[in-house]
Amino acid sequence: MNSSGLKDIIAVNSNLSFIDGELGKLLYRGIDVKDLVHKSTFEESIYLLWYGKLPKKDELQTFTLELCKERPIHNKILDNIKNIPCEASTISILKSIIPTLPLFEPVNDDPIKQGVKLVSKIPTIVAAIYRVKNKKEIIQPHKDLSYAENFVYMLKGKYEDIEAKAIETDFILHLDHELNASTFAARTTASTLSDLNSAISTGVNTLKGPLHGGASEDVIKMIMDIECEEKTEEYITKKLHERQKIPGFGHRVYKTIDPRAAILKSIAIELCEKTNNKQIFNIQEKIEAIMKQQKRIYPNVDYYSATIYYSMKIDIELYIPIFVIGRMAGWVGHVLEQYDNNKLIRPRARYTGFKERKYTPMNQR
Amino acid sequence: MNSSGLKDIIAVNSNLSFIDGELGKLLYRGIDVKDLVHKSTFEESIYLLWYGKLPKKDELQTFTLELCKERPIHNKILDNIKNIPCEASTISILKSIIPTLPLFEPVNDDPIKQGVKLVSKIPTIVAAIYRVKNKKEIIQPHKDLSYAENFVYMLKGKYEDIEAKAIETDFILHLDHELNASTFAARTTASTLSDLNSAISTGVNTLKGPLHGGASEDVIKMIMDIECEEKTEEYITKKLHERQKIPGFGHRVYKTIDPRAAILKSIAIELCEKTNNKQIFNIQEKIEAIMKQQKRIYPNVDYYSATIYYSMKIDIELYIPIFVIGRMAGWVGHVLEQYDNNKLIRPRARYTGFKERKYTPMNQR
Repeated sequence: MNSSGLKDIIAVNSNLSFIDGELGKLLYRGIDVKDLVHKSTFEESIYLLWYGKLPKKDELQTFTLELCKERPIHNKILDNIKNIPCEASTISILKSIIPTLPLFEPVNDDPIKQGVKLVSKIPTIVAAIYRVKNKKEIIQPHKDLSYAENFVYMLKGKYEDIEAKAIETDFILHLDHELNASTFAARTTASTLSDLNSAISTGVNTLKGPLHGGASEDVIKMIMDIECEEKTEEYITKKLHERQKIPGFGHRVYKTIDPRAAILKSIAIELCEKTNNKQIFNIQEKIEAIMKQQKRIYPNVDYYSATIYYSMKIDIELYIPIFVIGRMAGWVGHVLEQYDNNKLIRPRARYTGFKERKYTPMNQR
Repeated sequence: MNSSGLKDIIAVNSNLSFIDGELGKLLYRGIDVKDLVHKSTFEESIYLLWYGKLPKKDELQTFTLELCKERPIHNKILDNIKNIPCEASTISILKSIIPTLPLFEPVNDDPIKQGVKLVSKIPTIVAAIYRVKNKKEIIQPHKDLSYAENFVYMLKGKYEDIEAKAIETDFILHLDHELNASTFAARTTASTLSDLNSAISTGVNTLKGPLHGGASEDVIKMIMDIECEEKTEEYITKKLHERQKIPGFGHRVYKTIDPRAAILKSIAIELCEKTNNKQIFNIQEKIEAIMKQQKRIYPNVDYYSATIYYSMKIDIELYIPIFVIGRMAGWVGHVLEQYDNNKLIRPRARYTGFKERKYTPMNQR
């Protein structure tokens, strides 16, 4: 049985998210992400994903409090961040810090507790890396703010409601997406019954690649390259003619517009108007129209999240780490599910190499 | 298309190693590992695996020199190792150190160069972690020793020829084994075009699990539990009756004895005799006979490597890290192969969760 890249091969069963690639729908535990974005919060969405139900009032309170309590990070971790040369990229520093988290804490084998810690601390770590790299003082987490508000606050020292709302929406929409490469890799690590931190580290290692988490960076680089609306058509047509990929477009699963892109687009336009970045948005809409007309390919989640980050003046090096923050709780959910009904993930390779041959002694080579 | 754990599903093509599960044969680039163990070295086997041919004399000299030159590790890495609390397990420290390696060096995008660095430095790191944890002074790598000799030397401060030979054999036999879970996970990470260090870190995260790298630890624990030859039959029969797994036995691919186990057995007996550990070996042989007779299940690679480590008085916490050292160059080979003809690895999940349902407001839950 062959499959290039395991396309369309079922690797595991999952109760977490459902993608309808034809209709362009994404459900978490049966609930449309559109509803979650409009009616729920990131914290509640995580609860839903992990526990399979919407929380009662006291359940949500307890859960939110736990997430909040675990936000601070150990001084040794902060020291480690400060000791890393600034030239290293934010994502490389981040992926080196995550595996150190359990080393400075008493061993805790409960994977849900470990998951809460990771999800709580990851924005603190990302913000600390950013501020240290940029010679700014580290801002401690604020216990009275929501998850998304607190992240923007730790990054910038302040936040506007529209920014926090944009980031919260972005987090909810990145939370889970079935077996993308990073989630699948995390489950493969978990399938040897390796610990949760190891599985999550694998997720980060995998998301880091340009074919996975790198697209939103490339979207902004492309728009900067295009410069203005008038040059858009020529630029894109040339790229398509050269059979180059347009970043932020197409998806192995969606055959229509990625529902996440549609939601993010509506926030992107609002933010762009408020921050005088309308020309960025206009270029993007033009590209979208050209791609639809010429190739029937639609924007994916990375396309308008790039615009949101850019208009919030978020450093381009933070785009992948922000994706990591959003996806972290999704990886945890999948790893918990893998542990729950585990089967080692071990496919085969088709051997295409030499037939059996003799070992030739050195003097006969 | 469904497969539990992707059993027997082809995920990629590979030229690296070929397993004949029926005949119990393992080839690297077409050459039987038996030949490599008897006629080659670990360094030459790595060259063979990476470049697809046995090296000429000057090629091997240059390659060995490169591997040798890269053995020392940065002072900052040593400081990090010293700063980690001793209670952390050796493998947890190891997996946290590997991602930090590129942070203190100039960026080098050539994956082969990165691979040489990783393969060269990993024994230095493992030995340093062991010695720091045990309050012993760190021993610097020795440039005139072979890869295997130098590892035993850095661990113990001295080495005997039979020990270096045993470890070299163990390394050659662990070098590659097609798509085991860690190699497959490393290739999945690489398939997003993430960097080599990230892919290798994923390999370590995955190998760490008890269903993958943990078996040799469990073999020794079982033998300590059995205590003496006379109690073996009762112990194993009871375990089998309770449908418990016997560590070090069985393999998803081999239907006969794992050829690696057969080779390691011949070294294990020699070492056990020399070090007055014959009763350990006798217990193991007895278990092997019972398992063959009662279950037709044969020892795998972990079974007699455990004996080798034990008779060399190697700390049980080092068993998985030694597996990591052996497999490291195999992961590198697979990642290079993945980069060479890349296709994103992204299977699907079968959704088994809730049908679409409404978001219920808080006061109606």
